[in-house]
Amino acid sequence: MVRAEIIAIGSELLLGGVADTDSLYLADELLKLGIEVRHKTVVGDDPKDIEGALRHAFERAALVVTTGGLGPTQDDMTRKVVARVTGRRLVLHDETLAAITQRLKARQRPMTAEQTTQALIPSRAHVIPNPVGTAPGFFLSYRTERKEDHALMCLPGPSSEIKRMVPEGIVALLEPLAGTGARGTLIRRRLRSFGLLEAEIDARLKDLYGAEQHAVIGLQAGDWGVDVSITVQGRKPESAEAIVRRVERAIRDHLGDHLYAAGSQTMEGVVAMKLKAKELSVSVAESCTGGLIAQRLTSIPGSSAYFNRGLVLYSDRAKVDLLNVPDSLLRAKGAVSNEVALAMADGVRERSGTDLGVAVTGIAGPSGGTKEKPVGLVYVAMADKRTAFSRSHLFSGDRERIRRRASQAALDLLRRYLSGKAIE
Amino acid sequence: MVRAEIIAIGSELLLGGVADTDSLYLADELLKLGIEVRHKTVVGDDPKDIEGALRHAFERAALVVTTGGLGPTQDDMTRKVVARVTGRRLVLHDETLAAITQRLKARQRPMTAEQTTQALIPSRAHVIPNPVGTAPGFFLSYRTERKEDHALMCLPGPSSEIKRMVPEGIVALLEPLAGTGARGTLIRRRLRSFGLLEAEIDARLKDLYGAEQHAVIGLQAGDWGVDVSITVQGRKPESAEAIVRRVERAIRDHLGDHLYAAGSQTMEGVVAMKLKAKELSVSVAESCTGGLIAQRLTSIPGSSAYFNRGLVLYSDRAKVDLLNVPDSLLRAKGAVSNEVALAMADGVRERSGTDLGVAVTGIAGPSGGTKEKPVGLVYVAMADKRTAFSRSHLFSGDRERIRRRASQAALDLLRRYLSGKAIE
Repeated sequence: MVRAEIIAIGSELLLGGVADTDSLYLADELLKLGIEVRHKTVVGDDPKDIEGALRHAFERAALVVTTGGLGPTQDDMTRKVVARVTGRRLVLHDETLAAITQRLKARQRPMTAEQTTQALIPSRAHVIPNPVGTAPGFFLSYRTERKEDHALMCLPGPSSEIKRMVPEGIVALLEPLAGTGARGTLIRRRLRSFGLLEAEIDARLKDLYGAEQHAVIGLQAGDWGVDVSITVQGRKPESAEAIVRRVERAIRDHLGDHLYAAGSQTMEGVVAMKLKAKELSVSVAESCTGGLIAQRLTSIPGSSAYFNRGLVLYSDRAKVDLLNVPDSLLRAKGAVSNEVALAMADGVRERSGTDLGVAVTGIAGPSGGTKEKPVGLVYVAMADKRTAFSRSHLFSGDRERIRRRASQAALDLLRRYLSGKAIE
Repeated sequence: MVRAEIIAIGSELLLGGVADTDSLYLADELLKLGIEVRHKTVVGDDPKDIEGALRHAFERAALVVTTGGLGPTQDDMTRKVVARVTGRRLVLHDETLAAITQRLKARQRPMTAEQTTQALIPSRAHVIPNPVGTAPGFFLSYRTERKEDHALMCLPGPSSEIKRMVPEGIVALLEPLAGTGARGTLIRRRLRSFGLLEAEIDARLKDLYGAEQHAVIGLQAGDWGVDVSITVQGRKPESAEAIVRRVERAIRDHLGDHLYAAGSQTMEGVVAMKLKAKELSVSVAESCTGGLIAQRLTSIPGSSAYFNRGLVLYSDRAKVDLLNVPDSLLRAKGAVSNEVALAMADGVRERSGTDLGVAVTGIAGPSGGTKEKPVGLVYVAMADKRTAFSRSHLFSGDRERIRRRASQAALDLLRRYLSGKAIE
């Protein structure tokens, strides 16, 4: 298996509060080609740090991919450092220069000296065209001082550009590399669960951990639940696939309908698919989640097929006016109660004329909790034309975490209903 | 200035689609102590890779901080590898064992051998208690084979645990280290802009780039706008502060009210602050943003002081029913139009009885665009008791990016109104 390292370049990724997410996408794409990312490094725009990171990477990886630092501004240092480390000159690439000039002309912007620097490419490098931005990427083969052959690919920073360049050029460049170096295979599969603690899943899966010699089971707890990963390494593709399938079957037996998705599927994606398949429409009434459920349900292209409306209600008056929640019920039980959640789900469904209604009411904190109704207490409910049901949860964590978990619990209730399973 | 490196440990951070965001928080906290994070490395749960990353880090950083891999499951390898690299034994820490036992008892869960491993700490290490989880962290001083003194801090992976442990123990441990090694200072300040392209900002700030010898200005474009960072390094604290203030003033002169926030402030945070200060309430009507504006406005603790309700309307009928948008207007102009945006803002304000109303209508794509109304066309509007105004935007990017930018544009309109500036 070819070992790769990704170096993300940009001071904002170190200290500016910007998370590096492109490398996750890149790692997935490389894995599809049989190239395994074993390290990621993040460095600032300091040329010495970039140089050190590049040299370190060449010590441990056959393929090094950098992102960022190719733009026209003065803190874009990548091409200079690469030229120094690999001992190449920077040469002006005519086609790239023409492309940049044309791009700027179309936007009625002047060509400047800074823009020109983006057409400088290390000698003997392949240019990787950038269909959605000015700075192209490049790819070169490099023999280190220790006479080891390495490949280096430099890509611009913006996600949208990387995502266009990968299918349109990068895959073709990397395929030969992946072919020659592959000495086995690595398959990873992720199953996503909601409703059980990490420790509970650990206990349920305990006897599976050692059962398959070549499979490793990993758990990762997050706001959306616990993901279970199966990794099989160093086997021929067919037998690795068979092992993954076997382990997946065993995990499904142990976790049942707590598993809501696989791979990069999301809860909202699964729910959307089921709603479309059954041609059912839904409306949502939210308090503590503040629009998060509506936002997730409408993040899917084509969501108007099943989503009708979402109401975010922060006042009792709005619950009475827009959902017909009885005033007396709000006074007797309080806005955060099982009864009000059910009335909200019923009300939003009826007023919207949709097949289904979903509702959430709870206390996201940090203030507003009492001894009887602490921060983290959340009621989720849903209604169809005949009946309504609800569940209560007590989530821990900060405001954002509680809101995320509450939205996940509501969507999970909907998922279970749409799966045709009995809901207690 | 003490140089630090953060090593984030966990296969899910390499290939599982999980972005490492804790290191951003840690880097900010370390910088406050005068410790600069120069590198971040991400490695999987492979003991050899962790060992290699640790040894590399000791070559280039005086302080190494690891996150993750301290839990009770079999893929938690950090403490074993640390013991090997630093040549220490793992010893059972009685107080930690007692704390874990008590924690599990409170949750009515059995103590297992796996749970016990979390009380194993390298000899001569300081234990850093974990008030919100089972696995504590630890801190040790380490002299490398090259006789260089280094500090190593190992923390658990979950964000919520790190965020509690930093103020409650980590700061005290690191302060002496920061004091002895400081040979200068580094100050970074971030100003956040919306409404100008990166290239436009670059052109406006061009003459500032070389004006201050010790200041570096960086630009970072993202979905929420373009962030401008000022970095001053290697000066005494007072003069560095003075330089940052000078450069900030110059940038503010050049970018004016396109700057909406500084540091880690968000647009919704700024808007919330202004709404609270002026004691104004707001309601929101959204189509293409699908609840994102409501979600952002309610992400701030105490948002019920200014937020009344949010309506996510995916059908024309809902716009007529809930916002009094005239049916004839929808037919004449179409749902995505300036006129409908204004009517929605007016309608939601009136029906909610709030001081202000905000509305968005647009085409987030990928489908639904026409030649006259392409994907990315968005109208944002707002209304007060006397008047209403709107703006049109044409955003590029995918569905998520368009939704984010549309929500940012709507909140920016609100911000400008609340700043008392004239809105064209």
